[in-house]
Amino acid sequence: MSPSAPLESQRIRREIREGRIAGTSRGLAHGFVQCNLAILPKQYAFDFLLYCQRNQRSCPVLEVTDPGSPVPKKLAPGADLRTDCARYAIYRDGVRVEDRQDITDLWRDDLVSFLIGSGITIDGPLERAGVPTHKDRWVLRTTIPTEPAGPFRGDLIVTMRWLSAQQALTATQVTSRFPFNHGAPIHIGDPAAIGADLKAPLFGPPVPPAPKDIVPVFWACGVTPQSAAENARLPFFIAHAPAHSFITDMPSEAMMNP
Amino acid sequence: MSPSAPLESQRIRREIREGRIAGTSRGLAHGFVQCNLAILPKQYAFDFLLYCQRNQRSCPVLEVTDPGSPVPKKLAPGADLRTDCARYAIYRDGVRVEDRQDITDLWRDDLVSFLIGSGITIDGPLERAGVPTHKDRWVLRTTIPTEPAGPFRGDLIVTMRWLSAQQALTATQVTSRFPFNHGAPIHIGDPAAIGADLKAPLFGPPVPPAPKDIVPVFWACGVTPQSAAENARLPFFIAHAPAHSFITDMPSEAMMNP
Repeated sequence: MSPSAPLESQRIRREIREGRIAGTSRGLAHGFVQCNLAILPKQYAFDFLLYCQRNQRSCPVLEVTDPGSPVPKKLAPGADLRTDCARYAIYRDGVRVEDRQDITDLWRDDLVSFLIGSGITIDGPLERAGVPTHKDRWVLRTTIPTEPAGPFRGDLIVTMRWLSAQQALTATQVTSRFPFNHGAPIHIGDPAAIGADLKAPLFGPPVPPAPKDIVPVFWACGVTPQSAAENARLPFFIAHAPAHSFITDMPSEAMMNP
Repeated sequence: MSPSAPLESQRIRREIREGRIAGTSRGLAHGFVQCNLAILPKQYAFDFLLYCQRNQRSCPVLEVTDPGSPVPKKLAPGADLRTDCARYAIYRDGVRVEDRQDITDLWRDDLVSFLIGSGITIDGPLERAGVPTHKDRWVLRTTIPTEPAGPFRGDLIVTMRWLSAQQALTATQVTSRFPFNHGAPIHIGDPAAIGADLKAPLFGPPVPPAPKDIVPVFWACGVTPQSAAENARLPFFIAHAPAHSFITDMPSEAMMNP
C-alpha cells in the first residue's frame, strides 16, 4: 500500500458521504473502531458527559468534539460528523421525529458531539475467535437502573447473544480485552435475573424459545445513552440510527487492554 | 472480622478527620484505591471533565460528585470530602495561597468534586512484585503538551522511577493492569526524549547523576490536572496537597484490568 492510499475506513466513509452506502455499518471496515454518536447542545454536555462517566460500561466515551466542530480530530481527523454516518436519528422533545442521511442543515455552533465505543467493533475479534456475531442476537431493556446525572437516566439496555458454553467462555475472554467497546459481559444465564424481557426486544420480533444447551450472555449496549437522552426529553438531539455507527480510523487493536 | 468492623480505609479516614493523622497518605491503607482531588465551581466542571476525558492517562476520573455534595457515594459512601483528606491546597487565581486540614468553611453549593486515580494506589502491587517505590522517585515536568479543553491546558507531568532492567519490565507488567491509576509507563529511557528536566523536579532537590545500569521509567502523574487547573487561573479551586491523597473504600484489585 502506498503511503497515500486511503485506509479502508476512509474509503468507506467516502462511500457513505457520497450516498453510495446507506445501510448498516455492521461488517464494514473490520479492524477499525466504530462509534455510536450523540450530538447535543452544549448546555446539556456536562450532564451527559457525567452520565457517561458514571456508566462507562454502556457509555465508553472515546472522543468529545469542541462545541460547533464536526471534526473528530483524534479518531478520524479527515471526517465530517455531519455527513459521514450513513443514517442519523433526529430527536425533538425526546421523540425520534425523523431519520436523515446528512445533518448539515441542522448543524449549530453550540452542538457537541460524543463518540462512544460501539459493540460492532468487537464483531471482528469475536468472529476470528470462532464466536458467531450475525445471528441469535437481540437488544433488550433490563430493570437495572443506570446511575443518573442531571436529566439523563434510565434502565441499562443490553445486547444478548445465544452461545454455546465454550463460546460463552471465549467471548468473555475476547471482549474483556476491549473495555472501550463495552468490555466483558455484565451477566450470563437467566434473563429474568436482570429483568430482561424476551417478549419485547427493542428491535424486531419476540425472542424465540431457547434451544437446549444454549447460554444467554449479556453485554452493556450503546443504545443505553441514547435511551437516557430520550428520557431526558431534550428539545433537540441527534444520534446515529441503531446499527449505523460512525467508522473511525482507529485500529481496534490500539484500544485493547494490555 | 465481624461484619460491622470498619475497613482499614474507614479507620484511617477517621484518624484523618479527627486530626490524628496529618501526613502523607503514602503507605496507608494498602490495597485501597487512593484518589487525587480537584474541587471546583460547576461553571468550570464541563471543561475540566472534558480535559480529563482527553488526557485519561494522567487524569483517570473515578467519580464526580453532584454539585454541592461532599460525599463520594460510589467510592466511599461514608466519607466527607471536606474533612477526610489529610491536607488540602487552596488556590485563588491559579496560585496556591494556603493549605488546610479541613475545608468545611470554604464549602459552597456549586462545588463539584473530581476523584482521580492516584499512582500511590499501585505502590502496594509494585512492592509485592519486588519493585521498590519509596526511593529514587521524582516528579518532573515534560514538554509533551496535554490536549486542552476550555481554559485547562499544560504540559504532561510525570513520575520518574530509577529501576533495574528487570524491575522496569516487571513494573510495566504490573502497572498495565491498573489503567485507572495511570496504567503503563509513557516512556522508558532518555529523559530528554520527553523534555524532562532533571535539574528541576517539582518537589525537592535536583535529580542526582544516574548510577550505571539504571533505567529511568516514566508514568503519567496526577499532578498534571492540578497543573492544568493552575494554568486555567480559576478564581477558586481546591486540590489535595501532593502526596496527601484521599483514601477510598474501593479495593484496588476491583479496578484491575482483566
